Amino acid sequence: MSTMNALVYRGPGQIVVEQRPKPTIQKATDAIVRLQKTTICGTDLHILKGDVPTCPKGRILGHEGIGVVESVGNAVTSFKPGDNIIISCITSCATCEFCRRGMPSHCTDGGWTLGHTIDGTQAEYVRIPHADSSLHSANVKGASKEALVMISDALPTGFECGTLNGDIKPGSTVAVIGGGPVGLSALLTAQFYTPSTLIMIDLDENRLATAKSVGATHTIKSGPDTVKTVMELTGGRGVDTVIEAVGIPKTFELCQNIVAVGGTIANLGVHGTKADIYMDKLWSMNLTIRTRLVDAVTIPQLIKLVEAGRVNPQALLTHSFKFSDISSAYNTFGAAAQNNALKVVINFD
Amino acid sequence: MSTMNALVYRGPGQIVVEQRPKPTIQKATDAIVRLQKTTICGTDLHILKGDVPTCPKGRILGHEGIGVVESVGNAVTSFKPGDNIIISCITSCATCEFCRRGMPSHCTDGGWTLGHTIDGTQAEYVRIPHADSSLHSANVKGASKEALVMISDALPTGFECGTLNGDIKPGSTVAVIGGGPVGLSALLTAQFYTPSTLIMIDLDENRLATAKSVGATHTIKSGPDTVKTVMELTGGRGVDTVIEAVGIPKTFELCQNIVAVGGTIANLGVHGTKADIYMDKLWSMNLTIRTRLVDAVTIPQLIKLVEAGRVNPQALLTHSFKFSDISSAYNTFGAAAQNNALKVVINFD
Amino acid sequence: MSTMNALVYRGPGQIVVEQRPKPTIQKATDAIVRLQKTTICGTDLHILKGDVPTCPKGRILGHEGIGVVESVGNAVTSFKPGDNIIISCITSCATCEFCRRGMPSHCTDGGWTLGHTIDGTQAEYVRIPHADSSLHSANVKGASKEALVMISDALPTGFECGTLNGDIKPGSTVAVIGGGPVGLSALLTAQFYTPSTLIMIDLDENRLATAKSVGATHTIKSGPDTVKTVMELTGGRGVDTVIEAVGIPKTFELCQNIVAVGGTIANLGVHGTKADIYMDKLWSMNLTIRTRLVDAVTIPQLIKLVEAGRVNPQALLTHSFKFSDISSAYNTFGAAAQNNALKVVINFD
Amino acid sequence: MSTMNALVYRGPGQIVVEQRPKPTIQKATDAIVRLQKTTICGTDLHILKGDVPTCPKGRILGHEGIGVVESVGNAVTSFKPGDNIIISCITSCATCEFCRRGMPSHCTDGGWTLGHTIDGTQAEYVRIPHADSSLHSANVKGASKEALVMISDALPTGFECGTLNGDIKPGSTVAVIGGGPVGLSALLTAQFYTPSTLIMIDLDENRLATAKSVGATHTIKSGPDTVKTVMELTGGRGVDTVIEAVGIPKTFELCQNIVAVGGTIANLGVHGTKADIYMDKLWSMNLTIRTRLVDAVTIPQLIKLVEAGRVNPQALLTHSFKFSDISSAYNTFGAAAQNNALKVVINFD
Repeated sequence: MSTMNALVYRGPGQIVVEQRPKPTIQKATDAIVRLQKTTICGTDLHILKGDVPTCPKGRILGHEGIGVVESVGNAVTSFKPGDNIIISCITSCATCEFCRRGMPSHCTDGGWTLGHTIDGTQAEYVRIPHADSSLHSANVKGASKEALVMISDALPTGFECGTLNGDIKPGSTVAVIGGGPVGLSALLTAQFYTPSTLIMIDLDENRLATAKSVGATHTIKSGPDTVKTVMELTGGRGVDTVIEAVGIPKTFELCQNIVAVGGTIANLGVHGTKADIYMDKLWSMNLTIRTRLVDAVTIPQLIKLVEAGRVNPQALLTHSFKFSDISSAYNTFGAAAQNNALKVVINFD
Repeated sequence: MSTMNALVYRGPGQIVVEQRPKPTIQKATDAIVRLQKTTICGTDLHILKGDVPTCPKGRILGHEGIGVVESVGNAVTSFKPGDNIIISCITSCATCEFCRRGMPSHCTDGGWTLGHTIDGTQAEYVRIPHADSSLHSANVKGASKEALVMISDALPTGFECGTLNGDIKPGSTVAVIGGGPVGLSALLTAQFYTPSTLIMIDLDENRLATAKSVGATHTIKSGPDTVKTVMELTGGRGVDTVIEAVGIPKTFELCQNIVAVGGTIANLGVHGTKADIYMDKLWSMNLTIRTRLVDAVTIPQLIKLVEAGRVNPQALLTHSFKFSDISSAYNTFGAAAQNNALKVVINFD
Repeated sequence: MSTMNALVYRGPGQIVVEQRPKPTIQKATDAIVRLQKTTICGTDLHILKGDVPTCPKGRILGHEGIGVVESVGNAVTSFKPGDNIIISCITSCATCEFCRRGMPSHCTDGGWTLGHTIDGTQAEYVRIPHADSSLHSANVKGASKEALVMISDALPTGFECGTLNGDIKPGSTVAVIGGGPVGLSALLTAQFYTPSTLIMIDLDENRLATAKSVGATHTIKSGPDTVKTVMELTGGRGVDTVIEAVGIPKTFELCQNIVAVGGTIANLGVHGTKADIYMDKLWSMNLTIRTRLVDAVTIPQLIKLVEAGRVNPQALLTHSFKFSDISSAYNTFGAAAQNNALKVVINFD
Repeated sequence: MSTMNALVYRGPGQIVVEQRPKPTIQKATDAIVRLQKTTICGTDLHILKGDVPTCPKGRILGHEGIGVVESVGNAVTSFKPGDNIIISCITSCATCEFCRRGMPSHCTDGGWTLGHTIDGTQAEYVRIPHADSSLHSANVKGASKEALVMISDALPTGFECGTLNGDIKPGSTVAVIGGGPVGLSALLTAQFYTPSTLIMIDLDENRLATAKSVGATHTIKSGPDTVKTVMELTGGRGVDTVIEAVGIPKTFELCQNIVAVGGTIANLGVHGTKADIYMDKLWSMNLTIRTRLVDAVTIPQLIKLVEAGRVNPQALLTHSFKFSDISSAYNTFGAAAQNNALKVVINFD
């Protein structure tokens, strides 16, 4: 009764489902949530590879999910037990200088904490700090639970770090480099601004086909002619917006080769090393380059758009698992290309 | 009568004053201007070093200046012979796609042409294409000619590429790296937005003293402790805006080390090589990096501010020469540090 | 050979087709255009009612149209005889202070001149001043001439004065009051920003049906319950954006009654009298109210969107006439409601 | 010990100092503050006149002040007993849809509550709901308590509703109509953006003199020639920004007569009736009109500016009273013109 099953990180390459004590309210602003669905993020794989030293062994992973409020602290006013909620991947105190400036990703008492510096959502229950500002009502008419779980992280990441940071305008030309879940989320949300040309660039034919099916006007299989092809599609100008959704020096360099004068490079990729920036060429090109850790501040806006049927993020869910099979889910997502996997959903019932 | 004196680029390291034919109207939109004052830009030194292959031998140098209209083509409507004018360093057709988007720096029939792809302003006369959109009236109450010549290039470059691209807000913390004429122009114009902290970083004590005298709240002599000092001045946060006004990989890297989360790096420097960008650190910092070749579109706004006494760009003029001594002017400006030189003015009378 | 047929305003209520001299180049920046298609604007009806005292008797009406360049002045560089072009309803010198600020509607040597202060486009030929900045290439792949003629005025008016001034964001709730051609153009272009709710309010069932067919999510037949219905559709909040496309005090008041806290009222309507503004209610509502005379500066952007098939403005064309029947066209458009007329197209061949 | 002195509204025209129970923590997010200084706002006078029906008899008035935290609820994390704080005139839950959108003025569990819908700051103690997001640290180096008390309301009101809503840019021409405390706060903060011309219009010579002393470039004693004088000062264009700081139809109409094409009217005044808006003139003027109830979201930014010495709001304090003399303070402020009063400060010691 007071224990639960949880997916625990045990060091590089090691995850195990363990029995853990059910979380309890620690602060007046906490909520305890019983999970209904969660999913796996590329960042979880980074942890598993040992690339995230701030995540200790013993941590319950996961920062995405939907569920039902089990209990709340006495200062929580927006939610009560029984409420259906979406968990934000970013917990936010709502009052520190960063939260006030719209950057809860750098909240001094929050940010990316779940499944990182505190236990996360790949468990039957999770404690959510600052619940009033870190949860959202899941009462979204006409939306499937599969759509809602995409709102925790993937969809706002694509929207905030890709689309909004890319400053897309009606009629713009846009290229997204990398057709994984966040790259495709950028592709989905870019369409809110009606670009005239929307190109997906990837190595994987399956991802390109998915991109085409969810709105890309053109797809390019990455290769030696990529720059030439982009130039042909854009009358030699390059694209107004490039969204980098891979995270390696080579793709960051590709951005610089296909961006138009006056254009914007929006970085979505999680980079592990430095990269080259060709300032000798870029200094005079009137460019903007932007980076962002998702702030998840657009979740209320995205909920409205999902409710209105203006975006269908569930299109990016390719596989479904029971929580008892979460190891298989990791295997499938970890070898995404071989499995034609995008986002996998994990169900708690 | 039909010839004039002009400073001509004769190949790397070689400039000579020569007799050249006076320019004449070639197109209906041209004007011929008799120069009163001109100046030398860092870019002219780049040409002299042989770093600008698009500038051929035989070119009359110079893209800054004030003067009097001598004659105009039959399609010029805003100016007539005898008008006192300021020459924009950027000539603009006003109608191509780039001009329409506010980027005449990339005008398809203009841009940085003067003293580069066509003959320039370091001569007794110059032909200005698209005169209606490339000249500005110099009838500016209370402004000295020394102030006005700064409006051709240095002041809009600091304002557009540094201050505006730096997104400075009231109360911001700002650092300018590099106290040459454009770095100091950024420092002057940054004050339009009332930052709370305005730091100049340079190696040269004289430039730091000038920076202090024209509004820097703090100066830092560049050295191993620069990052530490900036952090101390900003409560450990770094600065909201860094303006890079040097143009080498080392200073571009310094920008990355002193910029705050959520901040902006505005690049003013003319870079000759690629640089390192530490995407492994920056990807999650919610940063903006901007580059720009000056568009000179803010000249009308800057004229109002000079007229209102809100900025005194003549403070950056350190030396004055006759045109017949322009070689000395080049020598002085070319060894700016030894001569405590910032901007030098060259007079045609 | 040197005369042409033209529709001439002869005073309130009087228009006649007359023989007039063909226009000729007067300035180096002029072009002469042979019309292929033109159309009639609500403003033409205002002139006909005698409401536009700045339009003298004897004026050839019309400020919209597409055609072929017949001849150009010697300073015109972007167009040559034989080019297919779209005429901007706003002529622009491109260099005055208003044009530089993106407001050619208030150009000191242009603005709304055609069919108003100079002869217009309801004639076989028209002289276009400042041709380089007042014409646009009509080489738009896949676009019908019917679509292109909508780009002269109706589409940019809806886009600039309605959609852009309305600050529509993905997920916004929007209401357009008035389903005439410009109101419907606002409705079409509002969709570039993916509102969640897009309401058309009008008295006319036919216009409401058209609105529905081109993207309205809801339509409301104007009546005593209009405010109540809007509130029901928006959870009691009102709409984030109201676009006023009628131009009378009553509809301007309706805007104030349905706008949400933090919302925007964008005025498209041409008003003939003052109106009431309930500042006692509005002062604390964090509202924005914007007006604009179309600047037509978005024509290049709209051309890209038409070319990409992202908007189909020809859907607003309901009737087609030969130029010899232009009087019938005026009759049809003048009694638009009885005729279920929106935009009428007039063909010169 | 458990009672305190408080200024209580007893109905139109009636205020009395009474003994009232000291407030106590009611919710986990509350704080109790012991006042050091408070002040009187124009809104308090509105209540006293009976113009604010939402304010019941028995209410302790006041929404401005600085003090020391006495106690906090168990969910308050940013403040502890003994902390010196500034009270925001707007209490904010930080998590409702309006707070998330930067509009705590319309907070669903806050907004203008103090001295209005809950007891306020003209008392020895006050209970502050949502203390973490409704208080600000008063540890501001070099700032007098007199400066800090201005940050509760007057300075952010002038800044947000006047300066920011007025979209002032370097070089702009600006007029403020009404030289009371909020009009003068707008005048002070407008200077953050370096307008070229900054005009104060008022009937009162004393206020005009104060305006001049704190940065107005011109003052106009309101009269039949006001419009003419503004036009003379602006080359016939009118001003880019008008800030309305009176709140009556006549001054709102004056705004319409002096605003330039492309300009902005920012409304600061609290209006009691509807006004006329001359849409027949304004529809084509490319104008923006904005209203706003102060959100107080700029308090952190204003604190930085006060700390940096960039603005000296204490210049608007004209009179000082002991709390025991608060009736005199009301009398003085209520007859501000006769007393040459701007802001009065009331001291609790």
